[in-house]
Amino acid sequence: MTRLQQQIRFILEADKLKQVFRRTLLTDASRYENAAEHSWQVAIMAMVLAEHHCPKELNLPRVLQMLLIHDLVEIDAGDVHFCDTAQRLKQIDKEAKAADRLFNLLPHDQAQMLLCLWHEFENRESEEAIFAHILDRLQPLLHGYVTEGRTWKENGVTRHHLLSIIEPMKGSAPKIYDHAAALIADALAKGFLTK
Amino acid sequence: MTRLQQQIRFILEADKLKQVFRRTLLTDASRYENAAEHSWQVAIMAMVLAEHHCPKELNLPRVLQMLLIHDLVEIDAGDVHFCDTAQRLKQIDKEAKAADRLFNLLPHDQAQMLLCLWHEFENRESEEAIFAHILDRLQPLLHGYVTEGRTWKENGVTRHHLLSIIEPMKGSAPKIYDHAAALIADALAKGFLTK
Repeated sequence: MTRLQQQIRFILEADKLKQVFRRTLLTDASRYENAAEHSWQVAIMAMVLAEHHCPKELNLPRVLQMLLIHDLVEIDAGDVHFCDTAQRLKQIDKEAKAADRLFNLLPHDQAQMLLCLWHEFENRESEEAIFAHILDRLQPLLHGYVTEGRTWKENGVTRHHLLSIIEPMKGSAPKIYDHAAALIADALAKGFLTK
Repeated sequence: MTRLQQQIRFILEADKLKQVFRRTLLTDASRYENAAEHSWQVAIMAMVLAEHHCPKELNLPRVLQMLLIHDLVEIDAGDVHFCDTAQRLKQIDKEAKAADRLFNLLPHDQAQMLLCLWHEFENRESEEAIFAHILDRLQPLLHGYVTEGRTWKENGVTRHHLLSIIEPMKGSAPKIYDHAAALIADALAKGFLTK
């Protein structure tokens, strides 16, 4: 198999991420979003929100590439809700196996490069990885708020859960943290969320 | 409105691209893909196929950003099939108006930056823009082939149409061109396509 054939095999396999559904609604609440379109939206978020990272400037291309591939493992491992702690622990092993299988569809050098990038994201090994995680958590919070907390109620998400997921924003992106904290307070006041 | 509020308004508006459907099927032919997940897939393609551009090396981050935003205008203007020449001409004006409205949801400096990037893509003003177009055309060709030409038959797409859309690959990405030309020949031989 040539390099190009291996790359195309990977691209066609990646298509399956469009069928992995998350527990986040579109902004008009018409349906759940899938992990491929979510990955696109968080990459767009990185493009417009990178300036809020501090203190040092980010390597934006690295954040973009990380966000584009961060959920690919869900093709094999599925999506697990951030509140489902027991399932999340089991997920670690499943996702590592999925990363090995999926990235190794590519030529060896590219597989190694993307495996490194994915591990950097997973283990929050860089400022870029931490910022990518911040956006990955901010996006469902924004959608949760505009859809009046429907999925928060469905999944038993509390104010306490949401405050814990925005905590890492405090140090790296304080303006984003302040905005997120205000949304959570407002969601509670409006009854979109329980204590 | 603060910069962050303007940026979040843009991010939530961008979500609507998940509801703009294209005439390309997922690889398992279960449904049509939307323009947001398509944008994600072509960005992934840029990451793994950039090495096939020649003769000079590309600015990959620029290609990624271009592909991430290239279809946003379809939120207002809708998707037009590449064979629908009459409609494509009317589309130019609609898309320019859409770009003005959408990107101007952002702070002025970011709106200008993304408008420039979008026009660069639209007018194929750089090697990066030409390569982004090549990927934007290669993706539905790959999906058309693996779904045995179902949407080609539905939309009256012929071998002649497909050869004309892969033509720009010849100079900029000859290995990709050869692969695409071989797929088209094979699709014809297998009856996925008419002359």
